[in-house]
Amino acid sequence: MDEFAFINQVKQSVYRQSSLVKGVGDDAAVFRQTAQDVITAVDTLVEGVHFSRKVMDPFHIGFRSLAANVSDIAAMGAVPAFYLVSIVIPESYSDRDLDGIYQGLSSAASAHHMDLIGGDTVSGGELSIAVTAIGFVKKEKARYRSVAQPGDILFVTGTLGDSAAGFHMLNSNGYYTDRAHYEDRHRMPQIRSHFAGQLESLNRVALNDISDGIANEANEIADASQVTLTIEEERIPVRTSFAQFTAEQQHNWKLYGGEDFELLGSVSEREWDVLSTIAERTQTPLTKIGYVSSSEEKNNRVILIDRTDKSTQLLKKGYTHRSR
Amino acid sequence: MDEFAFINQVKQSVYRQSSLVKGVGDDAAVFRQTAQDVITAVDTLVEGVHFSRKVMDPFHIGFRSLAANVSDIAAMGAVPAFYLVSIVIPESYSDRDLDGIYQGLSSAASAHHMDLIGGDTVSGGELSIAVTAIGFVKKEKARYRSVAQPGDILFVTGTLGDSAAGFHMLNSNGYYTDRAHYEDRHRMPQIRSHFAGQLESLNRVALNDISDGIANEANEIADASQVTLTIEEERIPVRTSFAQFTAEQQHNWKLYGGEDFELLGSVSEREWDVLSTIAERTQTPLTKIGYVSSSEEKNNRVILIDRTDKSTQLLKKGYTHRSR
Repeated sequence: MDEFAFINQVKQSVYRQSSLVKGVGDDAAVFRQTAQDVITAVDTLVEGVHFSRKVMDPFHIGFRSLAANVSDIAAMGAVPAFYLVSIVIPESYSDRDLDGIYQGLSSAASAHHMDLIGGDTVSGGELSIAVTAIGFVKKEKARYRSVAQPGDILFVTGTLGDSAAGFHMLNSNGYYTDRAHYEDRHRMPQIRSHFAGQLESLNRVALNDISDGIANEANEIADASQVTLTIEEERIPVRTSFAQFTAEQQHNWKLYGGEDFELLGSVSEREWDVLSTIAERTQTPLTKIGYVSSSEEKNNRVILIDRTDKSTQLLKKGYTHRSR
Repeated sequence: MDEFAFINQVKQSVYRQSSLVKGVGDDAAVFRQTAQDVITAVDTLVEGVHFSRKVMDPFHIGFRSLAANVSDIAAMGAVPAFYLVSIVIPESYSDRDLDGIYQGLSSAASAHHMDLIGGDTVSGGELSIAVTAIGFVKKEKARYRSVAQPGDILFVTGTLGDSAAGFHMLNSNGYYTDRAHYEDRHRMPQIRSHFAGQLESLNRVALNDISDGIANEANEIADASQVTLTIEEERIPVRTSFAQFTAEQQHNWKLYGGEDFELLGSVSEREWDVLSTIAERTQTPLTKIGYVSSSEEKNNRVILIDRTDKSTQLLKKGYTHRSR
């Protein structure tokens, strides 16, 4: 399939976003957004680095490429609107595979009312997909990881470790309960966009998405905000059937497992009730997992308290794309 | 170099665009643009498909990646402002090579007062660079290829065939005059941003950038506008030293040579003087090369009239990325 054929195939017949002036079909797309701030993020998936065809169908590859970007938009407290996609695809992929990738992208886009406004596909030696996502947020309401303050409540949405558990199952023939749930969490991650888009009523909230494990994201908030975060390990929410895994697996996956795409953040105690109401309204599981305190001598750290009340420093280790 | 180190290295200490609210450093970037429409385009370069290291240094690869995108923004009559870049880089590239790519991107960005607001670098089997460029244009003044009308004057900026000639020279040891000029046109294309950004005062102008040869771009305008374009071959502007090439080379390069990144467009006779003034003010060579007429029975075509007054249909053939 040549470039031209592909872009015609993926061109939407109907666009969802009213701010769009011109979609696919000219040198570039045009949109108008005078009321809100514009949010942009780019993310790249490469075969063999970020995913393997052994456990991911073309549909999943497409779906996850967009979901990872939507997660970055959500982590800004914003709502996604548009995406542009660049696909490098080897000759070994059939037109049907390419169509599968597109169906996955399209399915994730549909779930978030997003429009594809630019695309480029080129043949190359290995599959890689770079997505740029564009979202909108009320002026001055973009949420940064740098605004956590001592006294804040630390919270997380959903359950952690599911994606890592799903990845484990996809590479294993063992008997597991709840297999479909975990595998779906890995291959078709659901993003907390609806929740994120409702956060505008809060005065202040620090926010990060959990793409590289909570240990990593918590350290990013601590560094950016120059504070210390304390997490009580027993409070980290996991699915009931998570108990089927070994203690070591549970520990590693919930702390360092990547790509859960849940949200980690902090709010003042005063605003906790507002946040809880937003969570209820958007049917988002929300859990207090710790608190924020001031750092001694600029030593910004994340402290993990285990079930025996022992404190250890939680480091940024664990999941990296390269070491997988 | 890991992802984190790279993004820190490329992070600008000072941003040029006043509309930027938050640059690199959080989950996504934020900008605010209430006065103008927003333009976005994505373009991907892959080693071995779009360029070869034999003739392109890492600096040139970076420079051209961004330039190709800026050209798409210019082709909308818009001014570039931001870019996001996704780089897949093989282990065989050193940190110094990666730095060279960045320097090339950065140099092109500087020339157009653009800010890097998002980046992602991942190791992979072959070098590919996907750039998303974002620009701004006065509301309702984005320029489409679909608005050419019978009676319009067809124009082109600069000279054509230079990039193809440069590519030929870079692969040849022969003696040529003006070698540096042609090689530069291929490796460090200059984009008509300044000219494009001044077109707002025109009521109507159809516009395309010449990335795949004028034959291709003219057909795109004819199809999108449902008109017939007539081009007089002898009027197509070429550099004086272009005469050193064979007649066949000249013919092929100026009609089908890719990546000159000049602008092809059409305006009404009434607005020709306004356009000429903009060209003078921005020191942009501007040449009338033909005219637009209505298509008989929806048969939208491009007619080429040669020096002997013979007419032939100019087809969309020639340069494609794949066949190179």
